[in-house]
Amino acid sequence: METILNFLRLTQAERETFQAAAPDCEHLFRPVADQTKDARTASDGELARATVIIGCPPAAEMGKSPNLKWLQTWSAGVAPYLVPGVLPEGCRLSSAVGCYGPAVSEHMLSAALSLMKKLPAYRDNQNARRWADEGIVKSFHGATVLLLGTGDIGSHFAHLAKALGAHTVGLNRHPETPVDGMDQLHPLAQLDQWLPQADVVAMSLPETPETIHLMDERRLSLMKPDAILVNAGRGSGVDNLALAKVLTAGHLWGAALDVTEPEPLPADHPLWDCPNLLLTPHSAGGDKLDATIRRIAALALENLKHYLAGEELRNRMK
Amino acid sequence: METILNFLRLTQAERETFQAAAPDCEHLFRPVADQTKDARTASDGELARATVIIGCPPAAEMGKSPNLKWLQTWSAGVAPYLVPGVLPEGCRLSSAVGCYGPAVSEHMLSAALSLMKKLPAYRDNQNARRWADEGIVKSFHGATVLLLGTGDIGSHFAHLAKALGAHTVGLNRHPETPVDGMDQLHPLAQLDQWLPQADVVAMSLPETPETIHLMDERRLSLMKPDAILVNAGRGSGVDNLALAKVLTAGHLWGAALDVTEPEPLPADHPLWDCPNLLLTPHSAGGDKLDATIRRIAALALENLKHYLAGEELRNRMK
Repeated sequence: METILNFLRLTQAERETFQAAAPDCEHLFRPVADQTKDARTASDGELARATVIIGCPPAAEMGKSPNLKWLQTWSAGVAPYLVPGVLPEGCRLSSAVGCYGPAVSEHMLSAALSLMKKLPAYRDNQNARRWADEGIVKSFHGATVLLLGTGDIGSHFAHLAKALGAHTVGLNRHPETPVDGMDQLHPLAQLDQWLPQADVVAMSLPETPETIHLMDERRLSLMKPDAILVNAGRGSGVDNLALAKVLTAGHLWGAALDVTEPEPLPADHPLWDCPNLLLTPHSAGGDKLDATIRRIAALALENLKHYLAGEELRNRMK
Repeated sequence: METILNFLRLTQAERETFQAAAPDCEHLFRPVADQTKDARTASDGELARATVIIGCPPAAEMGKSPNLKWLQTWSAGVAPYLVPGVLPEGCRLSSAVGCYGPAVSEHMLSAALSLMKKLPAYRDNQNARRWADEGIVKSFHGATVLLLGTGDIGSHFAHLAKALGAHTVGLNRHPETPVDGMDQLHPLAQLDQWLPQADVVAMSLPETPETIHLMDERRLSLMKPDAILVNAGRGSGVDNLALAKVLTAGHLWGAALDVTEPEPLPADHPLWDCPNLLLTPHSAGGDKLDATIRRIAALALENLKHYLAGEELRNRMK
């Protein structure tokens, strides 16, 4: 008999859909309060019995589950589980890539709008009990938004920007394949010619050899003097010291970083003191938005049906 | 001959459209750098000659323009010019009501999103060089937005909220007349029954005897414990001391005020110290967004054509 160990914070209705989809399996619902923390809600006996795990147990402790045949993570990245020897021989692995689009893109939109309307400066004024006008503001309406990263997050962000009246230009390696939300798609190789045309540059790139310091000092300088940079991909996508330099020199309207290099950002890093920078601690994704958990639950349920029917899994990584 | 004294910051193309619309008139373009400041760009001789003024000269100095036949303000409100004796006998008056919808509604959206994603708290953390997660966030997706004020600003805000996935409920005195952007319209008299259902209460009401302290302590307490209040109408629409009290008691997710009672907010007002409050100094409107000036210019040009043709003016107030 299959034993399904489920660490998701499910509603009662969701639990029932899992049970209905797999009536002959043992269901162990062991919700974890905070998905960013390690899962310690299952006993060693339950971990040993599990043939299916939905969640992200610490990779170092996967040896406690020798009977595992399938791991469905709630993370988009699965690098720790791809290390040889972490998962049992033949164990399948599927990720939750695609579930974070709404949460991360809404955060990106909020951070960009906050910069456009100078809300960080107004917040600082408020803390100083200063009633002071900060002058002109910007808008997504009529703006050109350049998307570096056109996956689930970039596509969602493009939709939101278009809903507010922006024109969206996506750059990627396969511009011949249409992407939802993009008014135009071009090769990433054209980056240098698009940067001077963008009012907002929105990054949601994974870390690969090609994306490390993609936005270096030269490219940051190619941006319009009053453009906005948003990065919610990986911190390494932007040369953070170069960004600190150009912001301090007065280039760019502002930048919003949810990811930095390294993380956490050391207390003596020059970014902390940068003007017009809005910093959040890699908090855009995770399980902070209820909708994200609902999407992961739906994906896991769909994949459970595929698994039991012997069909291919969505987001299969191994 | 008519003399048109125009204080708007026009583009060259816009100047040419004004000249083309009134080729037989004298056009005096005297742009004012900051519309919130008094106009001092025209000489007394020019003010005396003007038969048409586009802009907002100080009401106390309108006596310098005894030949004025029409004043087109760039403000939505025109109360100072309605005081008897301010404008010459028979002088027409038209306002710019309807031009501020995009600017104010985008500010309201940005402020609400900023609260939803806890950006003020992250800003405070950033200032303290603190890399700390602030936990769960909220979204417009699936939220019920209650609009108190369904004019140009409320309608625009409803559109933006819907674009982000919200359901919009407008309350006003004439719910039988459809309003763009509203999924539902109900009588303002139903306010008490709608407040407990709203995730966001968005206020863009003018000041009238009926709106003063419309949101008092009792009604603020009717809101969901995790709801958000946004006020960009008039400060008097919310009992500010009651709001400080409920916020301090932990009721509401947060509040964003662009208007207060009084303005500027005194340095010892309890609102300054309120948790989860985002305060801006009546800065949502004005001429901070380029699009606002373009809309006012288009309205003034349209009204100039009406004026010269002897037709009725849009937004005529007197």
